[in-house]
Order: sequence, then structure tokens, then C-alpha cells
Amino acid sequence: MKVALAQLNYHIGNFEENSEKIIAEIKKGSAEGADLVVFSELAICGYPPRDFLEFEDFIKKCDAAIEKIAAHCQSVSALVGAPIKNNASKGKPLFNAAYFLAEGKIQKVFKKTLLPTYDIFDEYRYFEPNTSFELLEFKGQKIAVSICEDIWNIGNENPKYVTCPLDEMNAQEADLIVNLSASPFDYQQVKMRKQILKANNLRYNTPAIYVNHVGAQTELIFDGCSLVTNKSGEVIRQLASFEEDFEIIDTEKLDNDSNGDFPEREKIAQIHDALVLGIKDYFRKLGLKKAILGLSGGIDSALTLVLAERALGKENVRAVLMPSGFSSGHSVSDSVALAENLGVQYDNINIQELFDTYLKALKPFFEGLQFDVAEENLQARTRGVLLMALSNKFGNILLNTTNKSEAAVGYGTLYGDMCGGLAVLGDVYKTEVYELSRYINQEEEIIPENIITKAPSAELRPDQKDSDSLPDYEILDKLLYQYIEKRKGPRELIEAGFEPALVKTVLRMVNTTEYKRFQSAPILRVSPKAFGMGRRMPLVGRYLS
Amino acid sequence: MKVALAQLNYHIGNFEENSEKIIAEIKKGSAEGADLVVFSELAICGYPPRDFLEFEDFIKKCDAAIEKIAAHCQSVSALVGAPIKNNASKGKPLFNAAYFLAEGKIQKVFKKTLLPTYDIFDEYRYFEPNTSFELLEFKGQKIAVSICEDIWNIGNENPKYVTCPLDEMNAQEADLIVNLSASPFDYQQVKMRKQILKANNLRYNTPAIYVNHVGAQTELIFDGCSLVTNKSGEVIRQLASFEEDFEIIDTEKLDNDSNGDFPEREKIAQIHDALVLGIKDYFRKLGLKKAILGLSGGIDSALTLVLAERALGKENVRAVLMPSGFSSGHSVSDSVALAENLGVQYDNINIQELFDTYLKALKPFFEGLQFDVAEENLQARTRGVLLMALSNKFGNILLNTTNKSEAAVGYGTLYGDMCGGLAVLGDVYKTEVYELSRYINQEEEIIPENIITKAPSAELRPDQKDSDSLPDYEILDKLLYQYIEKRKGPRELIEAGFEPALVKTVLRMVNTTEYKRFQSAPILRVSPKAFGMGRRMPLVGRYLS
Repeated sequence: MKVALAQLNYHIGNFEENSEKIIAEIKKGSAEGADLVVFSELAICGYPPRDFLEFEDFIKKCDAAIEKIAAHCQSVSALVGAPIKNNASKGKPLFNAAYFLAEGKIQKVFKKTLLPTYDIFDEYRYFEPNTSFELLEFKGQKIAVSICEDIWNIGNENPKYVTCPLDEMNAQEADLIVNLSASPFDYQQVKMRKQILKANNLRYNTPAIYVNHVGAQTELIFDGCSLVTNKSGEVIRQLASFEEDFEIIDTEKLDNDSNGDFPEREKIAQIHDALVLGIKDYFRKLGLKKAILGLSGGIDSALTLVLAERALGKENVRAVLMPSGFSSGHSVSDSVALAENLGVQYDNINIQELFDTYLKALKPFFEGLQFDVAEENLQARTRGVLLMALSNKFGNILLNTTNKSEAAVGYGTLYGDMCGGLAVLGDVYKTEVYELSRYINQEEEIIPENIITKAPSAELRPDQKDSDSLPDYEILDKLLYQYIEKRKGPRELIEAGFEPALVKTVLRMVNTTEYKRFQSAPILRVSPKAFGMGRRMPLVGRYLS
Repeated sequence: MKVALAQLNYHIGNFEENSEKIIAEIKKGSAEGADLVVFSELAICGYPPRDFLEFEDFIKKCDAAIEKIAAHCQSVSALVGAPIKNNASKGKPLFNAAYFLAEGKIQKVFKKTLLPTYDIFDEYRYFEPNTSFELLEFKGQKIAVSICEDIWNIGNENPKYVTCPLDEMNAQEADLIVNLSASPFDYQQVKMRKQILKANNLRYNTPAIYVNHVGAQTELIFDGCSLVTNKSGEVIRQLASFEEDFEIIDTEKLDNDSNGDFPEREKIAQIHDALVLGIKDYFRKLGLKKAILGLSGGIDSALTLVLAERALGKENVRAVLMPSGFSSGHSVSDSVALAENLGVQYDNINIQELFDTYLKALKPFFEGLQFDVAEENLQARTRGVLLMALSNKFGNILLNTTNKSEAAVGYGTLYGDMCGGLAVLGDVYKTEVYELSRYINQEEEIIPENIITKAPSAELRPDQKDSDSLPDYEILDKLLYQYIEKRKGPRELIEAGFEPALVKTVLRMVNTTEYKRFQSAPILRVSPKAFGMGRRMPLVGRYLS
């Protein structure tokens, strides 16, 4: 049997485009002799459709698209992910399903059993779990059709779940496991998926075909990397990372048909490509082209500019330098050097007069009081207003340049440097910002060396340095990682060797600045625990604060 | 048997304060002859604790607090809501539980079966559902101990769930149903709860004691209104709305002990009290006292100011008038009249010079281009920056004044009038803003009549009116209600009599401005469907857009 893996970039709710893409791949599969074309989870509507699923109109559009696609499945069959109504009187109103389409119509529907409801996932919000199991018989083969999380409970040993759908469907009897996925990228995920597939291969002595979503949906980036593994768990095929791909494999030849050993790429290279795709798809799917950002002379905005230029092209990116009296000379010269290296448009607007005009307007209130965070934030906000004015006038979307370390401790000005439609580096710790910049410079100096080596500073008061109010980023990032990614409490952190006073200070900073992150731009997710929809914290609480 | 209902205002994660409050009520119950004191759901840590539940440290603190409280249950027993570890090897790591504390220790644990995972609820993210059922035997009585949602599946007819815990625990055998709740307010909820309790009373021929949370937790407002109903479903007691309360009832005397018929208050009166509590608790629980807001002369900021004054006291509220050249004379005079009626501090900062300075800084870029949304937003953002500068300098938290109609259609400036720590009216449609203002003025003219009767205008360009770009609010709000609260699609809306062109325009406005609401301040929730955590939409989608 010849199976095509159709790894596509869907657009949430864009039924016309998604259907056209699916139909095109069905035609291609048919032309190239495939028996079955496999698409990813919820391909019909894109993943995650979120509360659109609560609109009957939306579900009807899914149904109509499936009918339309089914009509094209004549010489070739297809497995397509889509929501389907739960017609029982009990349970959630939908199932997360895989339609088997053949001979021009819907032949069978397979439903997802394990509904991830943790981190960024909310599937139990919408879907009822499947409870009936069977194999798909097709071309004399028995296929275990599964959807994403369904293969992540090997032998029922994943504590999250009480059912093992592949055991239930008796996958030992199967000739092939097929999995329709929408598995978002993080820098550990490619490796994890291979381990999970291998465990399934070995447990059921069965090869597997795994078709993943590709493309970014606001915060979530899907990396593709669809896989074919043989019954020993060896990777036989790996489809492209971060782009659409299509491949046909012959299930008869899986044991002796490996075309490589597909090592995982370096973490930083993966993050780089994910961020570029994240920017690119955010713009493309919103029908936008042009970005703008403030170039401060620091490393965060420098890196963001490079990533934006790679995603959108130099002609679509505009940098604005906005020095004040507190800005050092190198802030401007380094920024100019970077913009010229990249060939992007840059402009210079000195904010001193605006800052002075604000101080004058506020003089009746501020007179006699010390310069403090109010005046610091005024400068950041003046810059935010200028960038948004240019954004509104010319349609360039403002990119936010806040990194994860800053976002964590609240080192940023709401409505100032926290402005922007998309936070490019919000899931990238400061130490990783350096690594990414080094990665970008590995062939040639794109980001001027001085930007990488200078001490980080917000330049909002004379001689300010990040290190005045924050611990060294090497230590801070390790501590933040243990608290945010690993959810370690204060005692565990101290036992792990962090200074008790530092633990207290940093945890307090994180927990008392939740209100800032609440209003943050959406953050491109590249780690297993990003700020945003995957980390839901009370704003008004009193815990470690 | 004498049962005390302890309706308390908890603070999320503030174990010390929550425990002290609980212990004080246990002592009071003991002193006043109660046999059992009932607290609400997750009382120990406050509701909703959200991802704090993923920290082992947090759960240990819950455990320690329960142990401490148990020691105080000597002459009196207690039912206290708390999370508890799931010690089984399978399933989610926690249960949502009710501890029965007696004779100085933990005697029994009852677990929640129905885990709401819709709208604002994420319980299946954290909790494993209960599957074993029994009654509590205490003082010769059999008690069906249930937690919140557990009583919301009468006879297993709620399609969301497949189990009816009260049927399972054979509540027919029970002498009393006790329910520990954290049921957030919306203007339909008081009535709904009574209906649900009555249905349980009648089905099991058993009286019920229902103890709800009170107090606001950022967006969510808990109204209290704890209830005692007899086996005919009549309300025997209703505790205070929007404040703490404590009452002891004798379960022997439920049939002939009604002290009133407790009609529901008017929707607008309920919303008014909810918003006042929402503001009050946001400030108190964050350790803040003082608010600031921009007073435009329009009805939204006027109403917000009145609510803030009622929540925080006139000495803690500061209003700022920020007219520009586009502001009408009455904007200032009406604002002054209102501030003087309330006795709150107000200041006037003319933004014209700042606006002109921005235009000068942007002249190299804007020259020759038309005045458009860029210049309009500049004014709104200049005001935002001034308010935030005063906020930063004096510690007054900025209140956002955006109403739900504006939030829905994106009629607001990001980082301008969308600034603020808390969106007071973000779940109140414009037509309800008028109703609330009339309600406030029913005894005397607090909000100057001219503010209520003038045509709404953002005053960002000459002679601007909301009606230039928006349909009449009477129609708009009805349409928005059907789309947002009722999730009707375009065909249903047109069938219901809305103009097809209007439906298309308005739905498009809602769906293409999700990016603005994503960065909105938290919104006090008063309706069954508020923007925020209860409505999760893709930003980058293409559906009705």
C-alpha cells in the first residue's frame, strides 16, 4: 500500500483555502499512485480553532468542507482531521475526529480518545473522549487510526490518562499505525516524538506514519517534521521542518528503506527557524506585509530585527532609532551599522523634546519630587507612541522585542517597550538571545559585535545597567527555568543551590508582575512552558509575593 | 443538627489569612452551638488558584493549612474545600475535595465528580474526577456532601456530563445535601442557583445547604448569596450578597422556618454591586488604595468614576481631564460638575502642546498625508501616557473605562484609552452603561444629566460621533449579545431579523479586533459570557472576517 503524507500549513477558519489545499494534495496523491493520503489533526479548520468550535455555523462549515473533499476521493482515499458533532444526548458537543474518505464519500469516522487539557491545550473544553475502538481495514491491511495524543500513553503508563487507545484497538493486530497530529513545536519536541513513536512501534511490532501540522497559528508554531518509522522504531522518513512537504511511502518496503538517520538539529537552530516561521505566518495569515520596530542599540531589538528581516524580507521591515539624552553614542552607531548590514530602512527620531514637553505638562504635579520610574517609563512610552503612530499611518505592525527573562521579572514598561502585535522573543531567555545572536553571526558579522558584548542597559537614566536591579542573567535564567519550566518551589530551589535571598526576590518579581504579562502581546512559543495561554496564573494572589 | 454557613472572602494563595478566617469562624460556630461549620469550595487557597495548583509547594501549603485548621475542630466539626493529591498512579495529580474535619483531625475526604471545563472554568486541567460515592454520617444524620458543579446535573440530564454524583451517592437516603461552591456571579446566576437547588430538593426529597464563595478574584466576582432550601425547594435562608456572612440554621426546623421569600434583585442593581466589589477587592487584595482615571466628559468614564468612588472612597480616587483642541466645552464643564458632585480630586492637563510636539516629531514622515486614525490614536495615547505617569509617580492604579460594545467592535486605542490595570465596564454593553447611570441617578443627579443625554463621541477629530462609524447602540448591542453571549452565526442572525450587511460588518469588526482584546486589562465579569478567560479565540484566523 502506498501512503502519502500531506504536511500542510492550514489557516484557522479559512475553509476555502484549507479545502483547496487538501484537494490539491489528494489529486497529487492520486496522480502519483498513492492509495491513501493522510492529513493532520483538525486539518479542515486549522489547529487550534478554540471557541470557534462553539459556533454551530463553524461546525457546519467543517461538515460542508468534508463533503466537498470526499467527492474528490475517487481513485485515492484520504484520512482528514475535522471536528464532528456528538449526536449522543450526553457528553461534550463534539468529537475530535479523523474522517476516512473513499469512493467519493465518508466511509468511517475515528475519534480521539486522549484529550490533552494542560499547558496550551484545552481539548476537554470542547470534545468528548472516544470510547469505542476499531481498526480500519483498507487494501487488505489493518490500520490503527489515531489522533495526536492517542499515541502518547504507551501501555497506559502516562499518569495523565486512564485509557490506552492503541491497546484498546488492539494495535498488535494492526499492520500499520497512522497518527494525525497537531503537535506544536518546542525545542524538545522533535526528539520526544521519535521516542514516543519508537515505543509504539516496539509495543505493537508495527510501523507508524505520523503526519503533523506545519505553520504558525499566532503563538503556536507547528514544525511539521512528519515521520515514518518501522516496527523497530527506526526513522525511515522525516519530512521538512517548518515548511510544507509531501511524500509517498510504500508500506511494503518500510524495513529496508531508510534514507538517513535524521539527527535532531541544535536547539538554537531549531528556535531560530521556529521564530522566523512564527513571524512570517503571523503576517501572512493576517494579510499583512510590513513590520516596524524600535532599534535601541541593545541585543534584543537587534536580534528581532534580523529575524524579522529573514521572515519578511528587508523591504518590509522598518527600524526606528529613538535616542534620548540618556542614550549612549554607540546605541545609535551600532543600530545604524546593523540596519545597514541588513539593508533595512531606518529612521531616527530624537525623543528629548517630547520627553521635555511631557515633563513640562506634568510639572504642576511632579515638581519637587525625585526622578524615578515615572520618568523612566515616560521615555519608553514616548517611544511606544511614536512607533504606534508610524504603525497606524503606514500599516507596519509593531514587533515587540521583550525577552523571556525580562517578561518573567517584569523588567519592561507597559504601553512602552511592551507595545507590539507579536512578541518575538518572549519565550527566549536572555542567555538564549545571546546564543541566537552568535548563531546568526557564525558565518559573518551581521549583528555588530559591540551589540553582543556591551553590558545590557535600558538607558532610561544616567549610566543605568540591567545589573543594577537584576542578578546576572546566567544565574537569573537558570533560576527562572527551574521556577517556570520545572515549577520548583522555593525550598527545592534553595536545595538546588540558589541563594535563599535571590530565590525570594526573583519569585516575588515573577509573581507580582503577572499583571504586566496579562497585557503582553502574544508570545511565539518555543519552549515547553511559555508565558501566555500555557501558563495561567491568578493576577490577584498572594503566593511567593 | 445545627449547621453554620460560613460565607467568606478568600485571597488566592494567602494561606495565613485564609486559615485565620476559617479558624475564626470555627470558633464562632463552636461558641454559638453549631455542630458543623461549612465553608466553600477550595476555601483553603481561594478560587481559582489556576496554575499555582501545579506547584508541589503550593499543595503542601494547602495540606499544612488543613492540618492546622483540623486541630481547631474539637467541639465542632467542619467541611472545608481544598485540593488534595491523587495518590493513585493514574489520572490528573489532584482532586478538588471537601475535607471533613472533626475531633481535631481529618476524618474523611469527599471529592468533586463534575469538573467544569467551559467558559471561565478549567477544572479538568488540574483535577481528576471522583468515582466513588458515599454519604457522610454525622450526628445521626446522613449528609450528601457535594462540591459546586456536582449538583448541576439533575437526574443526569445535563448533556455536559455522563455521571450524576447525587444519584450515585444515593441522595434519596440522605437527610441533607450540603454543597461547597465557588460559583461566580453573573446577572442570571442567583436565579439559576435557586432553580438548581430546588430541582435537587425535589428529586431527592431532601433539604440543601449551599455555601458560596464571596469576593472578587481579578475578573471573577463571587456574590455569596449562600442558600438554605427545604425539601420543597423553598428558600429558607439567603445570606448576604457581595459581602461576608455567617448564619447558623437548625436542620430540624427547615420546613417551617422560612424568614422571607428572597426575590432576586434587579439585574442592574446586581451589576452595580458586583462592579463595586470587583474594584474594591482588586485594590485591597493587591495592597493598593488609590485609583486614577481619565474623565472625558463621556458616560463611560463618568460611570467608572462613580463606581470607583463607591468602592474606594472619594479620598482615594483621582480624575484627570485632558482636553485637546477637538474637545467640546461641555466635556470639561460636565466632568468638573461630576467630580465636584462626588468630591473627588480632579486635575486638568491640556494635551494640545504634546499632540503638536508629536506631530512635529513625525512631520518628516507624515508630511503631505491625510489626518487619519494615526493622529486620532496619538491623542488617546498621549492621554494614556499622562495617566500612567501620574500612576507611576503617585501609585494610583489606572482604571480602564472601555465598555463591552466598544471592546467587541475594537472601538478603542491600544495603549491609549485601552490602558489600565482593571477594565471596570468591559462586560457592560453601552446600553447597560446608560441603565447603570440612570440607576445611580435615581435618587439624585450624581452624574450630570448632560453626560447621559449627549451623543457619544471620542472627540478625536472635529465633530466626531460614535454613530459616524458604528450602528446605533440599541441595535448594535442586541446583535453583539446574540453573537457573543448566544454564539449565533450569520445565518441565524439574519433569520432573527438583523440586516445582512450589518451582520457582516459587525461580525467582521468583532473577529478582526481580537488582537486588541488580547492585550486588554482584565475585565470584571458580570454576564454569562465576558471577554477574557471565558472566551478564547484565535487571533490569526479567517472566519467571519
